[in-house]
Amino acid sequence: HATSMHQIPALLEAGVRIVDLSADFRIKDAELWAQWYGETHAAPALLNEAVYGLPEVNREPIRTARLIACAGCYPTAIQLGFLPLLEQGLVDPMHLIADAKSGVSGAGRTAKIAGLLAEAGDNFAAYSVAGHRHLPEIEQGLRAASNTDVGLVFVPHLAPMIRGIQASLYARLNNASADDLQALYEMRYADEPFVDVLPAGSSPQTRTVRGSNVCRLAVTRPGNGDTVLVMSVIDNLVKGASGQAVQCMNLMFDLPEATGLGQIALLP
Amino acid sequence: HATSMHQIPALLEAGVRIVDLSADFRIKDAELWAQWYGETHAAPALLNEAVYGLPEVNREPIRTARLIACAGCYPTAIQLGFLPLLEQGLVDPMHLIADAKSGVSGAGRTAKIAGLLAEAGDNFAAYSVAGHRHLPEIEQGLRAASNTDVGLVFVPHLAPMIRGIQASLYARLNNASADDLQALYEMRYADEPFVDVLPAGSSPQTRTVRGSNVCRLAVTRPGNGDTVLVMSVIDNLVKGASGQAVQCMNLMFDLPEATGLGQIALLP
Amino acid sequence: HATSMHQIPALLEAGVRIVDLSADFRIKDAELWAQWYGETHAAPALLNEAVYGLPEVNREPIRTARLIACAGCYPTAIQLGFLPLLEQGLVDPMHLIADAKSGVSGAGRTAKIAGLLAEAGDNFAAYSVAGHRHLPEIEQGLRAASNTDVGLVFVPHLAPMIRGIQASLYARLNNASADDLQALYEMRYADEPFVDVLPAGSSPQTRTVRGSNVCRLAVTRPGNGDTVLVMSVIDNLVKGASGQAVQCMNLMFDLPEATGLGQIALLP
Amino acid sequence: HATSMHQIPALLEAGVRIVDLSADFRIKDAELWAQWYGETHAAPALLNEAVYGLPEVNREPIRTARLIACAGCYPTAIQLGFLPLLEQGLVDPMHLIADAKSGVSGAGRTAKIAGLLAEAGDNFAAYSVAGHRHLPEIEQGLRAASNTDVGLVFVPHLAPMIRGIQASLYARLNNASADDLQALYEMRYADEPFVDVLPAGSSPQTRTVRGSNVCRLAVTRPGNGDTVLVMSVIDNLVKGASGQAVQCMNLMFDLPEATGLGQIALLP
Repeated sequence: HATSMHQIPALLEAGVRIVDLSADFRIKDAELWAQWYGETHAAPALLNEAVYGLPEVNREPIRTARLIACAGCYPTAIQLGFLPLLEQGLVDPMHLIADAKSGVSGAGRTAKIAGLLAEAGDNFAAYSVAGHRHLPEIEQGLRAASNTDVGLVFVPHLAPMIRGIQASLYARLNNASADDLQALYEMRYADEPFVDVLPAGSSPQTRTVRGSNVCRLAVTRPGNGDTVLVMSVIDNLVKGASGQAVQCMNLMFDLPEATGLGQIALLP
Repeated sequence: HATSMHQIPALLEAGVRIVDLSADFRIKDAELWAQWYGETHAAPALLNEAVYGLPEVNREPIRTARLIACAGCYPTAIQLGFLPLLEQGLVDPMHLIADAKSGVSGAGRTAKIAGLLAEAGDNFAAYSVAGHRHLPEIEQGLRAASNTDVGLVFVPHLAPMIRGIQASLYARLNNASADDLQALYEMRYADEPFVDVLPAGSSPQTRTVRGSNVCRLAVTRPGNGDTVLVMSVIDNLVKGASGQAVQCMNLMFDLPEATGLGQIALLP
Repeated sequence: HATSMHQIPALLEAGVRIVDLSADFRIKDAELWAQWYGETHAAPALLNEAVYGLPEVNREPIRTARLIACAGCYPTAIQLGFLPLLEQGLVDPMHLIADAKSGVSGAGRTAKIAGLLAEAGDNFAAYSVAGHRHLPEIEQGLRAASNTDVGLVFVPHLAPMIRGIQASLYARLNNASADDLQALYEMRYADEPFVDVLPAGSSPQTRTVRGSNVCRLAVTRPGNGDTVLVMSVIDNLVKGASGQAVQCMNLMFDLPEATGLGQIALLP
Repeated sequence: HATSMHQIPALLEAGVRIVDLSADFRIKDAELWAQWYGETHAAPALLNEAVYGLPEVNREPIRTARLIACAGCYPTAIQLGFLPLLEQGLVDPMHLIADAKSGVSGAGRTAKIAGLLAEAGDNFAAYSVAGHRHLPEIEQGLRAASNTDVGLVFVPHLAPMIRGIQASLYARLNNASADDLQALYEMRYADEPFVDVLPAGSSPQTRTVRGSNVCRLAVTRPGNGDTVLVMSVIDNLVKGASGQAVQCMNLMFDLPEATGLGQIALLP
């Protein structure tokens, strides 16, 4: 982060098309970006052109884009989970909750005490509760989907595992006699090669997508109440990072979208 | 479960005072119990007499009780987290959310495939979303605290670790200009030997209570919104089970409440 | 184990060519088999015909075999490690030591208490020290390589991880001014597509072969003494099981040997 | 390491009695120390006075010592395992093998990439095969026990767990009709409060000493051959560090040896 924005303008100038895995061009608002990343944006003129790299939302713009700002890991898991509800206006957009859990590889390969096996192993805790950098990115995406303002409580947790994100998403239905949520989710993602809606009653496990580019979802209404629960899992290093970048690249170069992404989960 | 209820009547008859770690006498309503545990209750006449073994709620009744129904692991973590808010009527009691995560020892020492290291290791998922047996026990406790009906969405998750429960609890404040929640929690638990309210801005980690009888709490309002987040951790095998039983026993026999419970966390 | 030997004779009769992953046809001596597996062998007449499925030793016989007894996981890691030394007669064959460590998936997907995350996690111990079923299989292979009798102390250990075997192998050199062991190993495996001899000074890690069909080896003489140490790692579920079976099948059906085995390690 | 040697002379001068957990005074030979620790020893005059802090060997000298050089973690597990054999001259002292495995807390709380959960988790490998700093310390202790020169191959491995050391020790018996090894070990440690010799046929598990000051041993002769296998486990942070220091301190101040060390293992 805060590195590629210095190099990308020259590369675009030279005719290169770019899939950027950093957060530099994900947030459209340069001031908001500066607030969360702690420095002035170096290429604000490109923010508008950059296409947010989440194929399930932006497939067509991605095909022709010069600059893709690839969606982050938490944002991918959480947006894919909330999208069907928000697009249909079925829930209160101002009171969304994302209780998300990530394996330690989400923090990158930096030598930090908090990531040591002796610290993070056999342990569980929330972190960055006061505000995680992915919050504005997620809110921006959810706003676009719902076409209204949104309010999101995003609580990331560190789980004692290497790979995987699981997000349990909570939203209040506007209408207790809601539509069939299962059908809604199946329909929304029917043509998506990398989103897998599980049968009713399922709970997706992170290991079932370990090493694969799949986002696996389940939706339910606990106790038939007015709160809807969506569970979403991805491999943070694949659909949450490199796999998504390859998927975007395939679209940009008119390759079959799944090229190089055939890897099934390594289980167990 | 469903075993001790057959033995306890005779033991009480013989003058024995009992701390029961099973779920048999936790739920006051015999029909509700039967519904969740799948058989008729064998000693319904004792349900009313049994004292729910959560010292932070029932300290005085525990002292004189003949029969203690020791609080379960999830119920301990979740009730201690919600109590101050509900006792003061600060939140909407009908829309509580408990996103809870447990280490695998919570399932006991039974040989089940789902508990194998090769299955549960490096994995994260929700389970029993359709209804976990601890739900009615928790709701009963929360109802008593709030003196109103409650609605709880309780989503347990299995974390790839041995011990520990972490619960992230969400509730909607009735009043955006809420009281000072930090002070509320500190005051509520000021005299509790085994509840530790962390300073504002903290996130309790399960490892910091590993092997100890402490429940560690933190409370915050993410983004200063109207949702309050309480984070609660316990060692499910100590404050969530045997340690709590010893604490109850100490009260029953007029011993210092912390007798035998001096163990600090084994860290790392 | 002890299942396929009942089905294989009829299948062979029907003209099927078989890669058997069980241990039923690995040991040539029916009495020895009976002693370790606790029952009489059901098809002893086939023991002689069965070809031991370790391509690095039996590539040519595998091509034409009707029945392959695929090498086990520990036997693969240990034999590939010792072979160059024994084939050249460089070490005392009567005093070999294999200190081997396996992830829990080596025990299969059976519900056993010892395999629970709460038992096997954060724990390390030897097991089956009095005699592990893989001992006679390994000794048979080492005898064939050295053309003499062998004595092996084989100590398996359970490591708190899902996949992977690491074996540290110790042997006494006959001749303190031994040949260049590094060159010996590189030469022995120069043409092997799935054996990777690391540069001098390396220690192979199980994770670098996770999900791949590669056996990774390193050889050294600690303190330049007369004991040689070979370190060998495989993924017990790939090169130690299904991957090896595919490799054998490719040879049997004259396919390129690496067909379907291109998977690189999933790292981290 | 290389810090306390600068402070200790002044402290001794001031009349302080010291239990040093660093390696600075463990090795009697200042040149050997310099070779392994990469700098000149700052207080060589004290090396002779310093008493090696392993109560099972030096109980009496520890009582009156001014300066204790507390035994390291690997050295404790390995020496306690080999001592009975070497003291009785039962094995070839020139060909000892220690295949040792440690949890990651052995490396301390330094931020290093190799210790990250994403690197060390679900992984197994040897390390420091070319020479680990504990080698000269162990050899010095074994020489003292056997009263002869010794040759040790010491291969440390990193296991994906937080605490614990397991060492599998191999030695060649001088005499195939060896004495009863089980009785030898039981007798040698009969009066030791913190060494536990398991019944014949056992394999000690690291978790059974997690958090406790106990060293647990088992001895056997695999296949009744001439190689003896000793398995030794300790908690590297207790008997391998702080617990041992307390034990030494208790002896120095004439307190009951087990004062403050009553903690039993945290299991599971």
